[in-house]
Parts: sequence; C-alpha cells; structure tokens
Amino acid sequence: MNLIDLIDYLGTFAFAISGIRLSAAKRFDWFGAYVVGLVTAIGGGTTRDVLLGVSPFWMHQPSYLIVTGVALVAVILFKRHLVKLENSFFIFDTIGLGLFVVVGIEKTLDAHFPYWVAIMMGMITGSIGSVIRDMLINETPLIFRKDIYALACVAGGVVFMICSELGIPKGMTQLVSAISVIVIRILAVKFHIGVPVLKVDDEKK
Amino acid sequence: MNLIDLIDYLGTFAFAISGIRLSAAKRFDWFGAYVVGLVTAIGGGTTRDVLLGVSPFWMHQPSYLIVTGVALVAVILFKRHLVKLENSFFIFDTIGLGLFVVVGIEKTLDAHFPYWVAIMMGMITGSIGSVIRDMLINETPLIFRKDIYALACVAGGVVFMICSELGIPKGMTQLVSAISVIVIRILAVKFHIGVPVLKVDDEKK
Amino acid sequence: MNLIDLIDYLGTFAFAISGIRLSAAKRFDWFGAYVVGLVTAIGGGTTRDVLLGVSPFWMHQPSYLIVTGVALVAVILFKRHLVKLENSFFIFDTIGLGLFVVVGIEKTLDAHFPYWVAIMMGMITGSIGSVIRDMLINETPLIFRKDIYALACVAGGVVFMICSELGIPKGMTQLVSAISVIVIRILAVKFHIGVPVLKVDDEKK
Repeated sequence: MNLIDLIDYLGTFAFAISGIRLSAAKRFDWFGAYVVGLVTAIGGGTTRDVLLGVSPFWMHQPSYLIVTGVALVAVILFKRHLVKLENSFFIFDTIGLGLFVVVGIEKTLDAHFPYWVAIMMGMITGSIGSVIRDMLINETPLIFRKDIYALACVAGGVVFMICSELGIPKGMTQLVSAISVIVIRILAVKFHIGVPVLKVDDEKK
Repeated sequence: MNLIDLIDYLGTFAFAISGIRLSAAKRFDWFGAYVVGLVTAIGGGTTRDVLLGVSPFWMHQPSYLIVTGVALVAVILFKRHLVKLENSFFIFDTIGLGLFVVVGIEKTLDAHFPYWVAIMMGMITGSIGSVIRDMLINETPLIFRKDIYALACVAGGVVFMICSELGIPKGMTQLVSAISVIVIRILAVKFHIGVPVLKVDDEKK
Repeated sequence: MNLIDLIDYLGTFAFAISGIRLSAAKRFDWFGAYVVGLVTAIGGGTTRDVLLGVSPFWMHQPSYLIVTGVALVAVILFKRHLVKLENSFFIFDTIGLGLFVVVGIEKTLDAHFPYWVAIMMGMITGSIGSVIRDMLINETPLIFRKDIYALACVAGGVVFMICSELGIPKGMTQLVSAISVIVIRILAVKFHIGVPVLKVDDEKK
C-alpha cells in the first residue's frame, strides 16, 4: 500500500464517519447508517464518473465498502470516545478532500474536457457526497450554509490550472493543488471565514 | 404474457401504489402522485442501469408507465377500500422485490462485474426507488429506520452467489435467490425483526 | 448570438433566479445559492443527458455557469427591486420552458428513441431542475402540489408528435410545440387551473 492509497483510505474513513454519526442523530439503524456513510464517501466520485460517462470507481475494487464497514464498527464500538477524536477526523477529512479534488481534476482532464469542467468535477468529487448525505438525513446541505468547503475545492482547481499552464511538472502540480485545498479549508475553519449569507427581503417591504 | 412478466407487473404495481399513497398523505396532486409512484417503481432499476452505463430499462417499453397509470386510477377510484388490500399489496411488493433483486444481479453479471458488485446492484434495484420516494415526499428514508428490507436483498444476493459457485443450474439459482428475499422479508415483518438502531450519545456527556 | 441562444440564456437566467431566491429564504450563503440556481437551470437537461447516455450539455460550453453567475450578482445587487420584476421572470421562465421541452424532445428523437420516451424527456428537461432545487432546500417539490407545469411540458410533447406525424415541417413543429407549452402554462397560472389533489382518507375511517 503506497501513500496515495493510505490517504484515500483515511479520507474515505473520515467521510464515512461523518455520514454515520449524522445518521445516528436521526436514529437510523446500522444498515441505514452504513448506507449514509457509504454515500458520503463515494457520492461525489460516483456523480463525477456518471457525468463523465465512465464506470463508477468503487465498482472496480471493494475497498470503499470495506473501509465504510470499518467506520461503522468503529462508531458502534467506540462511540463514547469519538468526540475526543474530532480533530483527527477533521485532519483526515481535509487531507482526503485535497486528494479527492486532485483525483477528480485528473480524471476529467484524462477524458479530454477543458480546465473549467475539471475544476467543476474536482469540486463535485469533494463535496457532492456530503450534499447527498444531507438530503438523505432530511436536512438542508451544510456546505450551502457554513464555512468554506466547496470553494476550497474550486480554489485548488484554479491552482492546478495555473501550475499546469506554467509548465510545472505534474507531480508538483498535484501536490500544490491538494495543499491549497487543505490550507484554505483549515484557515477557513480556524478563523471562521465564510461566504456572505444571501439576504432577499421581499417580504419585509 | 408469461409468469415473469406478470410478477414484474404486479411488483411494479405494488411499488407504485406505495409511492402514490404516501404522496396523497402530503396532499400532492394527481400528477405529483403519478411521478412519485413511477419513481418508486423504476428508481432502483434506473439507478442500477445508469451505474452500469446501460440505457434505463423503462425507456425500451412503456409498460412501467402504463402500470403506474393503472395504479393511480386504482387509488383514485378505490381509495376507501385500499386498507383492506394491505396484505395483497404486501405480497405483491415482496414477490416483486424478489424478482427485482434477481434481475439486478443478472444484469450486473452480464456486464462482467464481480459478484460483490452484483449483490450491491441487486440491493440498489430493490430498494433505491423507495429511498428516492422518501426524499421526494421530504421524509427520512423508511428503509434506514425500520424492518429488514435492503438486507433481505443483500441476503438474496449472497444466496445467488453461493448457488452459482456450487454449480446449481441458473433457473434454480434465480428461484432460490428470489425465494430467500421473499422469505426473509416476510419473516422480518411478521416477527418485527429489525437492525439495531445506532446510538451515539455525543451530546449527553 | 441568434434568437435560440437568446431564449436559452433568458430561460437559464429565469430558472437560476428562482433557485437563488428560494435559497435566500433558507439563508444559504452566496455559494449555496449559486449551486441551487445552477442545479435549477441545468438539472433537467443533465438528468435527460445521463438517461440518454450522452455527455451533459453544460460540459461543452461554459455559458450556463456564466449566466447563473450573472443571476447571482443580479439578486445580490438588485434584491429590493426583484419583486417588481416578477412578471418579467415569469415570462422568461415560461418561454425558456417551451424551448427546453423542444430541445429535450429533439435530443431524444436524435438518439433513436420512440415518441413516448421523447415526451417524457421533454418533461424531464423542463421540470426536474425545479424538483432537485426543492429537494436541496428541503421542501416537497412545488410542481407536485401547485399549478400545471410538468403537464404543460407533456402537452407540448404530444403536440410535437402530432405535428410530426402529420408531416408538418420540423421548424414549424418545434415552434407550435413550444408555443403550446407557453400558452398552457400562462393560462394555467392566470386562471389558477390545477390538477386535482389526491385524497386518501385511510386514517379517517
């Protein structure tokens, strides 16, 4: 197992944990929690692959199903201690996000789409899983209301495009792009940087 | 019309009825109820076909649209008598579920995916329609909270795999797999067998 | 820019405005509002293209993303004056709907599907965007409860089929079909014509 695989597993694990914990708050059963965890972890990449017209990535190796299963067992066994691990989950989640965005961009460019589509797909890969998660638990999507999350994915995509256009080698471009996503996300959470809320006061007139 | 077609129609009818009745509780109009009924009936198979990269099954013959129309008319005309037919609907629904699971597995194996993908697709074929239904009527998905439903699909898939590996003839494998789904579902409902609810008491500490 | 492009842009703009304004009522941030606006505008055509197995239309030219961006800026800058423009939005929305339905029908016939599939796809192109919008803002879909909207799309599709079968030239068929959608929609809103609400009084017995 190389470093990329390890990051992929940790990111999947953190995404699945977020889905499973939110399911628990809705009193879903183990099966429902597993499904929501799985959708959180693979929903973004699946949407990307369907839009690109390629076979969804998780149908070619069972590791995502297995990692989600491990996440479910972890939540069931260690539920009392999960709160203490918040920071670890946040780090896994954020590093995973950086990786997922770069993977989404790469796959889209390989399919011969232009950069702006690749940037969209990087964002879709990183964030649509949590949108579907919130639809399943019947809440309005968190990323539409709080913090910078999807915009960090977009910024990472723009960095990727600039580095590529400047002729920076591929491996370095990927690394810088992923780190951009991670740093922006961490700064946004640490300093509570958000996007302004849209206000339309139709009714108040 | 052969037996398989008849089961397909009855299953579609029962799935559509469940969507239409839940729509009525939300005061949807006839059109909305028809759409929700249709999505309940064809949503699982459509999701499967999109993931497999093949053209959705209902786009090749109009019978699913027609059966859903019949279900809508039936609900409008006989609404007072529907409660008495609960058991019939349950039987149609369950037998249809067994068929849908087997169809989902077959289609996935025909597309040269391994057994574990086929088991997933059998479950998706049988249960995603009701998940989309519940998202449309703005409720958390029932199958994540109550009874064994999707797990019966998974069990039927495992039975299919075991029978195939043992060299049991295809027709028999299909029949045993479908019957497994049906029996598990009936036993789960009769004896109120469910999956444990996931509890995470983050907030209580 | 020809007339068709202009109608396409105005329709996209009106669809996006509806998504953005409903997002504002939920206190989404600018990013969330942009996404909901975009999904309202492109969700129907994307669903159609995924079902037809072709690459989604918006991945081949960035105009839909740009028009949605303009809509967001317009809502932010002119929010106090939007109410006065209700009628203009309604006209843009309705003319756009007529165009979107015809585009959906054409694309489906080009993919060699029969008329009944094309009629379904015309309806999906025109109305699924608003269904996904309502799922994202956590409301039951408006088109399932109010006015004639999707049925106007179906009627336009039937008109298209009849005109084609009568040998009417393609351009005229498209025009008559689009005008049918527009007229039915306007009449339905003006005279409050709706589909009957489905009532099932299971619980009252």
